[in-house]
Amino acid sequence: MHFSSQLIEQAVDAFAALPGIGRKTALRLVLHLVNEDLPVAENLGAAVLKMRREIQFCQQCHNISDQDLCHLCMDPRRDGTTICVVEHIRDVMAIEDTGQFRGLYHVLGGIINPLEGIGPDALHIDSLVQRVQQNGVSELIMAISPTIEGETTMFYIARQLKDKAVKMSVIARGVSFGGELQYADEMTLGRSIAGRTTYSAP
Amino acid sequence: MHFSSQLIEQAVDAFAALPGIGRKTALRLVLHLVNEDLPVAENLGAAVLKMRREIQFCQQCHNISDQDLCHLCMDPRRDGTTICVVEHIRDVMAIEDTGQFRGLYHVLGGIINPLEGIGPDALHIDSLVQRVQQNGVSELIMAISPTIEGETTMFYIARQLKDKAVKMSVIARGVSFGGELQYADEMTLGRSIAGRTTYSAP
Repeated sequence: MHFSSQLIEQAVDAFAALPGIGRKTALRLVLHLVNEDLPVAENLGAAVLKMRREIQFCQQCHNISDQDLCHLCMDPRRDGTTICVVEHIRDVMAIEDTGQFRGLYHVLGGIINPLEGIGPDALHIDSLVQRVQQNGVSELIMAISPTIEGETTMFYIARQLKDKAVKMSVIARGVSFGGELQYADEMTLGRSIAGRTTYSAP
Repeated sequence: MHFSSQLIEQAVDAFAALPGIGRKTALRLVLHLVNEDLPVAENLGAAVLKMRREIQFCQQCHNISDQDLCHLCMDPRRDGTTICVVEHIRDVMAIEDTGQFRGLYHVLGGIINPLEGIGPDALHIDSLVQRVQQNGVSELIMAISPTIEGETTMFYIARQLKDKAVKMSVIARGVSFGGELQYADEMTLGRSIAGRTTYSAP
């Protein structure tokens, strides 16, 4: 593409560096900002700068936060004895959106993946072990990817905690609500049969 | 969606204000910036701010430009006697990418659309008429949408220029290269038959 402006080209390059945005989409976004009033672009530019410069991570659960502790860890109504262990920040948001969980979280920041050079030390596992030791945690709910790397991570955490009086559980895997059996993959369908629950007529 | 951070929420809102980007995509982009190193986000934020604050429009053809005149209008090798009239800046880029046109451009900034309240005064038609009068322009190539609004705009421009010794032409409409006849719409196919050219064996 030929750009008649260095400024446009730099902005297109910056947008195209984002995941899932190619140069054509980036150009469409930039030309939209050119056509809109100045405050629209200023708002976006300033929000990105401010967000990235001032964002903090909760010192307890490693969720994103505007302060030292996130709003979940500071909420006295949440049950501190149950911790849901997840890989990423977006998993916290997804579980919060269900409204089904009233405990606290622990964001590992990924899973153990030797092929990509991610060992236990690169994750927030030590701080999880410390939380379990210090804060009277009774249950860890593992909401981790059901992959070999995920199983490895859970196994590693279980080993670290084998002397502690804490229960570890794993979220249920199965056919999703509204999903048809024929479209479920074999692994999911197999697990959903192995993990079947008793049906009680309502 | 629940955000654990005001900063994240503001950045998501700013991204979601862009066309074709919903709140889920916006969140994915923001979390990508959180995970990347600081310079990635700073580069994007600064590029957007700088682009929107410093962008100018060419005083002759109304294309985007870093200076008073765009690089096309300043290029002495371009043929100033032929002007291609387009609606939008992105049309200039699209035609430049073909490498088939060596003249100059004139960006109208839209087309006459009474339903949306866009009259001739909102467009760069006066400056087009001035360019034709002053600069020895011999041909205007109209590369405007083949819609009723586009036809109206071309008719209006033709009326403004009826006393001037300037030829007006319209880009060819027809079945696209690689396109199959059965998928072309009736209007395009009809025009491509009416506008047929003599076949000469190579």
